[in-house]
Amino acid sequence: KIKDDSVVYPIIKELQLNIEEIEKGGYDHFMLKEIYEQPRAIQDTYRGRLLADQGLIKMAGIDDNLEKFMNANRIIIVACGTSWHAGLVAEYIFEDIARIPVEVEYASEFRYRNPVITDKDVLIAISQSGETADTLAAIKLAKEKGAFVFGVCNVVGSTISRETDAGAYTHAGPEIGVASTKAFTTQITVLSLIALKLAKEKGVLSKSKYHEFLTELENIPSKVERALLSNELIEKVAEVYKDATNCLYLGRGYNFPVALEGALKLKEISYIHAEGYPAAEMKHGPIALIDEHMPVFVIATKKGHYEKVVSNIQEIKSRKGKIIAIVTEGDEAVKELADHVIEVPETFESLTPLLTTIPLQLLSYHIALMRGCNVDQPRNLAKSVTVE
Amino acid sequence: KIKDDSVVYPIIKELQLNIEEIEKGGYDHFMLKEIYEQPRAIQDTYRGRLLADQGLIKMAGIDDNLEKFMNANRIIIVACGTSWHAGLVAEYIFEDIARIPVEVEYASEFRYRNPVITDKDVLIAISQSGETADTLAAIKLAKEKGAFVFGVCNVVGSTISRETDAGAYTHAGPEIGVASTKAFTTQITVLSLIALKLAKEKGVLSKSKYHEFLTELENIPSKVERALLSNELIEKVAEVYKDATNCLYLGRGYNFPVALEGALKLKEISYIHAEGYPAAEMKHGPIALIDEHMPVFVIATKKGHYEKVVSNIQEIKSRKGKIIAIVTEGDEAVKELADHVIEVPETFESLTPLLTTIPLQLLSYHIALMRGCNVDQPRNLAKSVTVE
Repeated sequence: KIKDDSVVYPIIKELQLNIEEIEKGGYDHFMLKEIYEQPRAIQDTYRGRLLADQGLIKMAGIDDNLEKFMNANRIIIVACGTSWHAGLVAEYIFEDIARIPVEVEYASEFRYRNPVITDKDVLIAISQSGETADTLAAIKLAKEKGAFVFGVCNVVGSTISRETDAGAYTHAGPEIGVASTKAFTTQITVLSLIALKLAKEKGVLSKSKYHEFLTELENIPSKVERALLSNELIEKVAEVYKDATNCLYLGRGYNFPVALEGALKLKEISYIHAEGYPAAEMKHGPIALIDEHMPVFVIATKKGHYEKVVSNIQEIKSRKGKIIAIVTEGDEAVKELADHVIEVPETFESLTPLLTTIPLQLLSYHIALMRGCNVDQPRNLAKSVTVE
Repeated sequence: KIKDDSVVYPIIKELQLNIEEIEKGGYDHFMLKEIYEQPRAIQDTYRGRLLADQGLIKMAGIDDNLEKFMNANRIIIVACGTSWHAGLVAEYIFEDIARIPVEVEYASEFRYRNPVITDKDVLIAISQSGETADTLAAIKLAKEKGAFVFGVCNVVGSTISRETDAGAYTHAGPEIGVASTKAFTTQITVLSLIALKLAKEKGVLSKSKYHEFLTELENIPSKVERALLSNELIEKVAEVYKDATNCLYLGRGYNFPVALEGALKLKEISYIHAEGYPAAEMKHGPIALIDEHMPVFVIATKKGHYEKVVSNIQEIKSRKGKIIAIVTEGDEAVKELADHVIEVPETFESLTPLLTTIPLQLLSYHIALMRGCNVDQPRNLAKSVTVE
């Protein structure tokens, strides 16, 4: 406060921040920021669409084309990379809850293989950037064959959002880190909303179950917050396994695609050869890889065929594999078998991917960091793949 | 010749062979014997079914249930391990040639995930032993839902062959090696016959193309013989890469499942962490793994989107990955880029898996042998998985 007439010499300090650092909002990397943004991003994605108190899901892209979805012979989902994993989760949700047959395809395979597609099919294309070349080509093929094409993109006004007949944006906000995180969970959020809406319209889901789902979806952001609290524990686990040359990721049912996604994250940013598998397929080959040097990450939450996964864990244990398990809060059986457990809150089985993904993202982040890798710009990779 | 009356003392020599060695027919291992039996096994599988001169495919299991197949909404294929890979090849063949939508599922995932299945669906279950527990459970589920269930097994009188509504045996003969080889190629042979038969019945394949296919199928055994002639070259390639800790296998279209199968073979018997991928998915993550230590096996035959695969090879090359390519006889473009090439004879695109699989089997065999592994009885694995 200046009260007299003396000359004031203002001290001008230059902020030691460049624009990138400001955008990182205090986090060391975009990837970490985006992992922590997920509670908010998921909420932004269902905001204005999920009206739990009225028992409504409002999505213009679906409402305006309801007949197409109701009369669909089947839904074909095309995508690449992480979006393809979100598509696999969606397959389980759509078939389980909305009782519509779903086929999930790699966009690059679908477009070149002379697939059977008719005007009775609905094609859902998933792409964070909305510019993925192979996905775009699959859309063009499907349109030529007369299919109704629906897009799930994050970038507003992107090519895919313009080329599709209708669509729904994930409102995740800009994703800068090359390894996709919040795009994945918001894609699953949008696809869950669609499945629930169609289930209600088709009358294949009881009213009470439907309402329970809407309420539980609203609980997800705070449960993601809770999952994020394991960060310090996960850092310690990362310290133990940071020098691994190989890893396996296992899951069943809804969490099989999460295993694939967990492995992809580790591959992308830490350059460790990680591979995901449906847990029951182990016996048909991959279990030969297991010895004391092989860390195995297992998603073993309570509702996902828990006993079966526990027996898979025992098989790995008896071959001396190291087990890091993602479990439901309060779990006891897996805790006794595993070398490390990381807890996530309980939720409906079909919504578990939104929670079990979180520790796997953090784990990849910390391991990559400890190995001195460039987390936000991994070698050889581009954020959006606009070439075939 | 004894001409006088002198006493003859016969020399009785004991054969230094046990029953197992006799059964190996001069080969060091059952796996090698079974790899070399493939020309004969494939022929045995189509013998009496494929009547090329009459333009006929005779299969009682299909003839007696033609309506079920002709009216099928879709075909769902369930299997595990190597049989699942044969199912993926079949998906491409059925959709491409017979224009029937196909969904391929891991049996273990299908049975637990509340899938949509109706009495308009045909389920094809594939299992060498016919005893695979998860596949059997998937069959029971499908039957409960009213689907028509068709089995493709090798072991005559096995549980799956008895539990299914109809079926077709692969006549591969007993497979003793734990890593499946001739079961895979004969499964593809049976499934190709079914696809061609249905394509003809549906009228979606021209008469001339149909006849060309039948003739070409009859050429396959001698082309497999020719592919087997690369054995010595493959042994030399194995010598170079036998100490690898990780490998990638890439293919597109019909040869994407072959990449998966090639990787599984190496995993099973050499304990090297090998992973298969559709070549175009590389850019969406796995390419981050590529450096000078990573051998990449690429199936790059002429008809399978050749230019696209060549551009994938260039991407790997520019990241210093080592490339071993399976190419068509006389190839030139890939030969210039790859570190090693192994040739297979030219055939129809949809039949290439029957040829491209052969060098990958031999390669796994030699690498495993050089690493001192028990080729016929790899650690942790059983020939038929009769537990869930």
